Amino acid sequence: MSRRQILVSEVGPRDGLQSIRTVMPTAAKQEWIRAEAAAGVREIEVGSFVPEKLLPQLADTGELVRFARTIPGLTVAALVPNLRGAQAAVSAGAHKITLPCSVSETHSLRNLRRSHAQLIAEAEAIASLICSLPRSQRPHFEGSLSTAFGCTIEGPVPDSKVLELAERLLAAGCDEVGLADTSGYADPTSVRRLVRLVRGAVGGAALTGIHLHNTRGLGLANALAALEEGITTLDSSLGGLGGCPFAPGASGNIVTEDLCFMLAAMGFETGIDLERLLEVRRVVAAALPQEELYGFTAAAGLPLGFAQAKHPAGSSSHVSPVSTP
Amino acid sequence: MSRRQILVSEVGPRDGLQSIRTVMPTAAKQEWIRAEAAAGVREIEVGSFVPEKLLPQLADTGELVRFARTIPGLTVAALVPNLRGAQAAVSAGAHKITLPCSVSETHSLRNLRRSHAQLIAEAEAIASLICSLPRSQRPHFEGSLSTAFGCTIEGPVPDSKVLELAERLLAAGCDEVGLADTSGYADPTSVRRLVRLVRGAVGGAALTGIHLHNTRGLGLANALAALEEGITTLDSSLGGLGGCPFAPGASGNIVTEDLCFMLAAMGFETGIDLERLLEVRRVVAAALPQEELYGFTAAAGLPLGFAQAKHPAGSSSHVSPVSTP
Repeated sequence: MSRRQILVSEVGPRDGLQSIRTVMPTAAKQEWIRAEAAAGVREIEVGSFVPEKLLPQLADTGELVRFARTIPGLTVAALVPNLRGAQAAVSAGAHKITLPCSVSETHSLRNLRRSHAQLIAEAEAIASLICSLPRSQRPHFEGSLSTAFGCTIEGPVPDSKVLELAERLLAAGCDEVGLADTSGYADPTSVRRLVRLVRGAVGGAALTGIHLHNTRGLGLANALAALEEGITTLDSSLGGLGGCPFAPGASGNIVTEDLCFMLAAMGFETGIDLERLLEVRRVVAAALPQEELYGFTAAAGLPLGFAQAKHPAGSSSHVSPVSTP
Repeated sequence: MSRRQILVSEVGPRDGLQSIRTVMPTAAKQEWIRAEAAAGVREIEVGSFVPEKLLPQLADTGELVRFARTIPGLTVAALVPNLRGAQAAVSAGAHKITLPCSVSETHSLRNLRRSHAQLIAEAEAIASLICSLPRSQRPHFEGSLSTAFGCTIEGPVPDSKVLELAERLLAAGCDEVGLADTSGYADPTSVRRLVRLVRGAVGGAALTGIHLHNTRGLGLANALAALEEGITTLDSSLGGLGGCPFAPGASGNIVTEDLCFMLAAMGFETGIDLERLLEVRRVVAAALPQEELYGFTAAAGLPLGFAQAKHPAGSSSHVSPVSTP
């Protein structure tokens, strides 16, 4: 029986580190990225190409992209706020670039200092840049629909606005859009509704990913709803680091370790070795001794007989999510 | 549009307090029960009729049952480990009694010092006691299938064993069985599978409730799966207090506050006022200053415009889960 593949996209080095004051040394970030890739994580967002004065924590993003590119099999992703960031990402060799676009225009103006019209123009310019590159050097280009489930400034966001911005971003040249619960307002019903709405309108291939926070504890329930609606890429952060500096109290991405445990327990294939993944916490904890790491699986450990229970005799050991090579 | 009713059964005064060393004074427990009932919680498991030397924290269960019976509209539940406990519960006037029955016989022997055969005999004796009472004084009698999703001593538990014990408990005279993830081993797939299996075999009316822990962070995802399989009663604990002294590391029931936020956001009707519920944390925190309270909604607060978003103009305010009377 073949198992459904799910891509866990680690965003901790970007979304996690941008939300805390401590600047993690580049060497520690490299160790984190190396260890997590070695645990089987296949995509990592290593940073954001924003001006150093805005986010000094991420000033080494170019160096990290170049480093991460040396890891075989790893998709190296980076956030870009505009064309200039995209140029830097392309120059460093990112495989995937994500332009955040707040569905709440107020949030967009405060967070990125761009109106929707300006964001769409930026997306068009980035798409042109990508088109000008040799095919082998073109990064995958995603428009992320931030605050899709509501905004801490505007409150509820109309579904029609989410769909409209999705369509405009795709028309501007994005390969794909993603739904992002920036403010932690999503619930399983709204996740199902928006995923269905957008996928129904733009096609399943144009919306495969979701970015969820655990602000009100619903992160994994929302992830479950998304999975059951056909989402195949889930952003998460090791130790649940992360949040949004413009969404007070909205800290905490969903926890990579707990997400991967859930996926493995449910029989999804992620390629991730859970025990090795749990060990990566030590790398992050050592580099960020003042930061609280979230998640429950690390403390509880894996259930007794977990590997055997999920992979009865006959299944090949190399696909086991808890194999210990 | 009528909304589906979900019963949130608060188990903190029993499962929460039995897991911690601090003995909460009876007056504080009463204040907790009073405040939570006032927030709209309709069922509370106030304690367990176990020998005082085993669980001194719950020695006042009889007094609490009698107190809670004075609160109009509240269903007063209590755990009973055996016939003697059931006699005490009946004498105090409990509306509902729950006999825990570990599907893992090893766990049952260590936790309750009873084999399955002995537990079934106990269930039969309790059912006889109940039958001997005038109809108006008969408590609802539930057999709780502990370790249904796996055991920290035995590891995986066969589905067939869960179903077998469910059938034996119902044959012994239980009105209902419940599934309990004592060890925090459940995942959404196993929740769906076991709920379907047992309800399919014994009928939906004989399995309406589930008791979930958040040991590995999957609590609300598991709750979502259970809800979608037709479960209508969810046990939870204020601040996520609780666990199982015989399941190391398996601390933490699902958090009442986060569960109730999820249910309200999804449009389920619980009768619970979220803002008043969040205030109950103060009562518990004041009485248990050394204990960590879990949950995210309390820190994050309710989303901006939450009440309005979920209850657009025209819906009657008295059903609003965030109404402030």
